[in-house]
Amino acid sequence: MSQYLELKREVYEANMELDKRKLVTYTFGNVSQIDRKAGVVAIKPSGVAYEVLKPEDIVIVDLENQRVEGKLNPSSDTKTHTYLYRTWSEIGGVTHTHSTYATAWAQAQIAIPCYGTTQADYVYGEIPCAAVMSDERINGDYEEETGAQIVECFADRSPLESPMVIVAGHAPFTWGKDAAKSVYHAVLLEEIAKMAYLTKTLTPSIGDLKQGLVDKHYLRKNGKDAYYGQGK
Amino acid sequence: MSQYLELKREVYEANMELDKRKLVTYTFGNVSQIDRKAGVVAIKPSGVAYEVLKPEDIVIVDLENQRVEGKLNPSSDTKTHTYLYRTWSEIGGVTHTHSTYATAWAQAQIAIPCYGTTQADYVYGEIPCAAVMSDERINGDYEEETGAQIVECFADRSPLESPMVIVAGHAPFTWGKDAAKSVYHAVLLEEIAKMAYLTKTLTPSIGDLKQGLVDKHYLRKNGKDAYYGQGK
Amino acid sequence: MSQYLELKREVYEANMELDKRKLVTYTFGNVSQIDRKAGVVAIKPSGVAYEVLKPEDIVIVDLENQRVEGKLNPSSDTKTHTYLYRTWSEIGGVTHTHSTYATAWAQAQIAIPCYGTTQADYVYGEIPCAAVMSDERINGDYEEETGAQIVECFADRSPLESPMVIVAGHAPFTWGKDAAKSVYHAVLLEEIAKMAYLTKTLTPSIGDLKQGLVDKHYLRKNGKDAYYGQGK
Amino acid sequence: MSQYLELKREVYEANMELDKRKLVTYTFGNVSQIDRKAGVVAIKPSGVAYEVLKPEDIVIVDLENQRVEGKLNPSSDTKTHTYLYRTWSEIGGVTHTHSTYATAWAQAQIAIPCYGTTQADYVYGEIPCAAVMSDERINGDYEEETGAQIVECFADRSPLESPMVIVAGHAPFTWGKDAAKSVYHAVLLEEIAKMAYLTKTLTPSIGDLKQGLVDKHYLRKNGKDAYYGQGK
Repeated sequence: MSQYLELKREVYEANMELDKRKLVTYTFGNVSQIDRKAGVVAIKPSGVAYEVLKPEDIVIVDLENQRVEGKLNPSSDTKTHTYLYRTWSEIGGVTHTHSTYATAWAQAQIAIPCYGTTQADYVYGEIPCAAVMSDERINGDYEEETGAQIVECFADRSPLESPMVIVAGHAPFTWGKDAAKSVYHAVLLEEIAKMAYLTKTLTPSIGDLKQGLVDKHYLRKNGKDAYYGQGK
Repeated sequence: MSQYLELKREVYEANMELDKRKLVTYTFGNVSQIDRKAGVVAIKPSGVAYEVLKPEDIVIVDLENQRVEGKLNPSSDTKTHTYLYRTWSEIGGVTHTHSTYATAWAQAQIAIPCYGTTQADYVYGEIPCAAVMSDERINGDYEEETGAQIVECFADRSPLESPMVIVAGHAPFTWGKDAAKSVYHAVLLEEIAKMAYLTKTLTPSIGDLKQGLVDKHYLRKNGKDAYYGQGK
Repeated sequence: MSQYLELKREVYEANMELDKRKLVTYTFGNVSQIDRKAGVVAIKPSGVAYEVLKPEDIVIVDLENQRVEGKLNPSSDTKTHTYLYRTWSEIGGVTHTHSTYATAWAQAQIAIPCYGTTQADYVYGEIPCAAVMSDERINGDYEEETGAQIVECFADRSPLESPMVIVAGHAPFTWGKDAAKSVYHAVLLEEIAKMAYLTKTLTPSIGDLKQGLVDKHYLRKNGKDAYYGQGK
Repeated sequence: MSQYLELKREVYEANMELDKRKLVTYTFGNVSQIDRKAGVVAIKPSGVAYEVLKPEDIVIVDLENQRVEGKLNPSSDTKTHTYLYRTWSEIGGVTHTHSTYATAWAQAQIAIPCYGTTQADYVYGEIPCAAVMSDERINGDYEEETGAQIVECFADRSPLESPMVIVAGHAPFTWGKDAAKSVYHAVLLEEIAKMAYLTKTLTPSIGDLKQGLVDKHYLRKNGKDAYYGQGK
């Protein structure tokens, strides 16, 4: 019997939540979670529809993308997920979607500015946009390079300060302490991206939210003296 | 046994209605109601998801924001609610959401003009937009100051003439005679905000609805000779 | 026992269809149907929510707006409905909504151009926009004047060539051979209005559909040699 | 007993999927599938609502549009379907809808540019827009000419490189190896068209996705060395 039953079940449920929250069309999207002790990642199989997906279909790979358990091919984006896990020890789950509004911003190839406290409650500042990939990198190890380009957006910033990114011409990736939290951030990103779209088309000249309000909202929820919620 | 059972139940149901009407994502949003005789306010606890919220989780605070009953922390926006109750004796319920279109107008930092009779049926003129807060007020008592800035929008106007406001860079607040009515106004605001967004992006130069039509619609529903509905 | 049981049931069901098709928020909207032999109109009562509406709540009025049967006040828009019935003998049902996209065009105060065959299948050309009302008419018999202004849009055109209109600063009215058909046209109008909004914001300079295509589509469905559908 | 029972059932289910995926309003839209051995096409009857459609209502016609089996009139767009089947031996199913965002692009009379990998996963480059029809062709065999104009868009391109097209002033057509796959492409087109609308209204000056990314995504999924999914 598989030693990864619980890990597979959590990743299965996080993937189904994506579908339930209407963030995916057909087979778009995939969620993974790492077991750092075992050094393995559980991820959705490639091209399998949510309505037929079963917990036992979840594929287990190691951090070098070798299949450890499972009969199906893992998501074609697996190398992007493992790149993020190898680089950022502070994350435990990764979600990739083509959710409508977040993808529109990615296609427009611009970072999502922080226009309001809805975003500042979860992201410290703008949501970065990874650059359009060079031909050299596309023709190299494409999915690995996608991971590398995401990480380059966080040269001066912790990945926890924006648990979400959009990749120019492509779509968003989000992360969190586990698979469920990365899906949670994917849902928030889509809502934030929709509000930002409406704001910018309503008033194209609108500037970013003032730093004082970003600080106040981000820190009352995420700072060391946070007073939102019911404590830890 | 709690003496506030009925108050808690009403506030619980008003909060659940927010979720049912799809005005909130996850834990966004909160509804309260005041019992003026008892001098207490019942409000949603902070950061609790609607799918697990129970009537007994509703927190009772006094008008100075001290918890009177309940084990959970009240909403982090409690001070804004109590500020409004202390200032306006004519209101009995307050709702705060980050509903999509209303928040987009708040992020665009402009009052919602009265473009049509849908708005004029409920609001006498524009829906005001409280100013972006100064750093001094942010660093003071932020949630209390949010209440103060809302009240400043009504210096020359009764809060019943626009039972709704948007706060620049933040999101909307609405009110009414009780919690249920404040949710009702939150639903109307979101629909009005969507229509206004579509109107302005369709014809950016469009002006406000003529005063004669604002008067006619507002007064046939809310004036002393109102003839809409089934009487009082 | 009421002699209008069947008429009330049909009007009740048409009103409920409005709610089911998500064209109304709360009490917005009303549907009526005329019995020309009996000289009466059945219409929704004013300000009653759809979730509590019952067939026996439907009010019967005569063509001079006098209540013939029913305990509740008829819709505050009753005079607009009866004006249309008195003027146009070819219609049997009328629907009024504040559906989102159609209302946005009304608020933008412009007729909906014919951009495509989806509209031309049902409307021969543009969907007219009744003018913003003069103060004199507003202060006269407002709801009656709304009917008069709608009729003025059809000075050179049969009301069957566009079974729908938008009233500037207000909202749409639609009609048909009975209540059900007028609701059908309200649903189509909202979909057409959404497509037209998207078309115009995508390409503000886009012109109307060429007349040859309007003729082809309108006539293959509504002309004397119509070949769409299963015959009469 | 009909020898086309299975064919009718598949076409019935594909039509119902259109309705379930919310791509149609009332009777809009139709799906067909060809049986190339038998030389017949099964297609939705004209003007029949989805809620009353039954598998036995599906009409069988030959490639010259003559009814072979069924009591109802076939879709008024039948000649467009058969034109595509006669011209392109590589397709087995065709879908026509008036889905909202795809129709808006058709009404705006412009091809949908390839802005991102969501499109490039399924379409090699832009989604073409067939020209507004000349009066001569409209007054000739209109539905046949619609087919001819679609085919003209693929003079230099296989219909498999873009299993979808929009027809200027009208609406989209999509195709695939069978009826179900053509509906699948209709769903994807609507989602792609929505993302493209948002992208272009957000940043009107945005250019097409670079060719290297189009190649990478289209070929990793559809090329001879495709590595997406679970193999054939």
